[in-house]
Order: sequence, then structure tokens, then C-alpha cells
Amino acid sequence: MRIAELSRQSGVPVPTIKYYLREGLLPSGELTSPNQAQYDDTHLRRLRLIRALLDIGGLSIGLVREVLVAMETPDKPVHDVLGVVQRTITPPRAVNDEHRGWADERVAELVSRRGWDARPVDPSWRALSEVLMTLRQVDADGVLALLDDYSKIAEDIAAVDVRSLIHRRSGTESVIEGMVVGTVLGDALLSALRRMAQQNESSRYFGKKVVAG
Amino acid sequence: MRIAELSRQSGVPVPTIKYYLREGLLPSGELTSPNQAQYDDTHLRRLRLIRALLDIGGLSIGLVREVLVAMETPDKPVHDVLGVVQRTITPPRAVNDEHRGWADERVAELVSRRGWDARPVDPSWRALSEVLMTLRQVDADGVLALLDDYSKIAEDIAAVDVRSLIHRRSGTESVIEGMVVGTVLGDALLSALRRMAQQNESSRYFGKKVVAG
Repeated sequence: MRIAELSRQSGVPVPTIKYYLREGLLPSGELTSPNQAQYDDTHLRRLRLIRALLDIGGLSIGLVREVLVAMETPDKPVHDVLGVVQRTITPPRAVNDEHRGWADERVAELVSRRGWDARPVDPSWRALSEVLMTLRQVDADGVLALLDDYSKIAEDIAAVDVRSLIHRRSGTESVIEGMVVGTVLGDALLSALRRMAQQNESSRYFGKKVVAG
Repeated sequence: MRIAELSRQSGVPVPTIKYYLREGLLPSGELTSPNQAQYDDTHLRRLRLIRALLDIGGLSIGLVREVLVAMETPDKPVHDVLGVVQRTITPPRAVNDEHRGWADERVAELVSRRGWDARPVDPSWRALSEVLMTLRQVDADGVLALLDDYSKIAEDIAAVDVRSLIHRRSGTESVIEGMVVGTVLGDALLSALRRMAQQNESSRYFGKKVVAG
């Protein structure tokens, strides 16, 4: 198909598609004349993935490029690919690291209590440590006290996540794409479901009668 | 304290603090001379909350301002404040809404199955619908099939969330701040825990031996 048709089917404007081509997010089409290229379903599929990561995942153009590069690493063990994907979509955050030592200790204790296979160099360890540092600074003792409750729930989520990968039709690209989509869009899905369930739970507990304070 | 001390205690550079003052994120200090203002612990606390929402929550300056304004609405029922907070931190996303009708039906069925108190005008309903539309476009059937599993888990999360609010020391500001921190930073906390648990689960299931494909 030509670029106009690719635009129509994806809902992405032609200038935006050209921008993704220039930025190397989308592979070039096959040139059929000096000014014209043909695109196929792999381009359409890639374009939809790019939009999903940008619009729902909230990733930057630069991070999307890194994720797509990470996806082009076939013949690696699944567990290693998950590591590459996690590292890419979990960049370090600019936080005030006054309490980094304290936070790393809390993470180490948690990992030991849960018996998790995790090390300080893992992006998830660093990300958790950054959240804990920040929570401590805003005095959110309530949330910290519930760390184990949330951790138990995270195990339930991960069990569902991994089950979805196991049941996925085979093929390296498919499994890796499933990881990327499941991790990035899965966060957005869980966040939306959590808010809907919060609202329901809040309505049950607080009703319309209780006034804050 | 003077602005230099506020900067030292918060770890936020003086020019950044001045920017937040100009943008109305931080209330002005008390003028002690034409060129000098005094700040107190409420400024320090507010500054840490601003950084938490920006750095960990990933909110924009504009959204942080809206959240802070939403927090200044005392004497509203707790359930209503949660609605205001959710609406503020869940802005509509620019998605290709080709499948909006299909997605809204899926959400309606889910809400009915779970017996949730939710309506199409709720920000969480719209957010969930946007994620489902996008998931459908990237052919993530695996994730959609697990919607009920994730929803059950979201109920567990919300029960913990609301419990943390109930146990929080009373006071309107404290409960509302707890909601903001718990919702925005809670998403980041759950995301980090989920990745750590995923890694652990992936290591158990896939080990280092299984190759994708």
C-alpha cells in the first residue's frame, strides 16, 4: 500500500508517518519509483505499536526507538529479553537521593522477605528504591506500611503476566512484542482498573455522607 | 527559613523554586523586606509533594497545578474529592478512537460482571476504554483475555488503597494529600513491584534455558 493508505488504515497523519521514518522508528518502504514507496502489514503493525507506546504508554520518541531496537534481538533466552525490555522502559529518574541508602535497605529486606530473585543492579530494584525515597520525603507512612500487601498483589499480577506470555502463540517476535505491550500497556490497564475499583471501594466505605476531616 | 535554606532542605535549586513560585505551584513566602521572604515547613512539604508528582508521578507542571487546586477544596465528602483527584490526574489521551464503541461495550460488560459502581462519564471508565481500544489495535488478545484476572487483582489493590486512607490520621488536608500521593505514587510503586515480581516469575518459569521462538 502507499503512504496515504497506510495513514488511512492506521489513523496516523502522513507527516507524522514521515517523521517516524526519518527518526528510524518505522522501517523504510520498498521503493517502487524515486518518489514512491510501498508499505505492507508489517508497517501497519509497527505503526500501531509505536502509537500505543507513545499515547498510552507515555514513552518518549527516544524510548520508543530503544524499545524497538531491544525487540530486534532474536535468539536470546526469554528471561534475558525481559531484562532488556525492563531496562529500556525503566530509565533512571531525577530524584532527590538523600534517602537512597535507607531505600535500598528497605528493598533488600522486602526482597529477602518475599524470596524474590532480584539484585540492586536490576532496573526494577532501582525504580522501587526511587519510589520509596520519594514516598519517604512526602511522609507517606501509610503507603510504606502497606508495602508487603502491595508486594503480595504484585506477585499475583506477575503470575497473570507470565501466564499470558506462555499462552501466546509462539515466535520470537510475538513473545517479545507481547512482553513490551503487556508491560507498558499493562501498567496503563492496571492503573485504569485500579481507579475504577478505588471508586467502587470508596463509594462502599465512604458513601456520600462522610466528610473528610 | 529563607529561600536558600528551603533549597538546601528540599534539594530543589533556588531558580527552580522561583519558577514554581511564579507558576503558582508554591504559595508566596511572608515578605520580611522588599527583597526577602520567609518560608516555613508548609512550603517544604508542598515542595516535596510537587517534586514527587513531577519526578515519580510523571505529571506535567500544568497537571500538578490542577491537582494542587483540587486539593484546596475542603468540606467536600471524601468520595467526591476522590472523584476530583481522579478526574485531574486522568486527562483524556489522544488515541485513535476507531474502536471506541467496541471498547465501551467491553467496559460496560466488565462493570456489570464485577458489580462495580461506575459510569461512562467517569475518568476511569474513559481511561480503561482508551487502553482497550489501543490493545485491540496492537492485537494484544492475550491481555484482553486476562481482563477479568486483572480486574479481580484491581479490587484487591483498591481494598488496600482505601484501607490506607481509613487508617490515615484525620484532617481534610491529610486525607486528600494521602489520596493524591497514594494514587499517583501508588501507580509508580505498583509498576516497580510488578516488574520485580515479573522478573522473579520469569526466572522461575523460563529460567535461563528456554529460547523464545
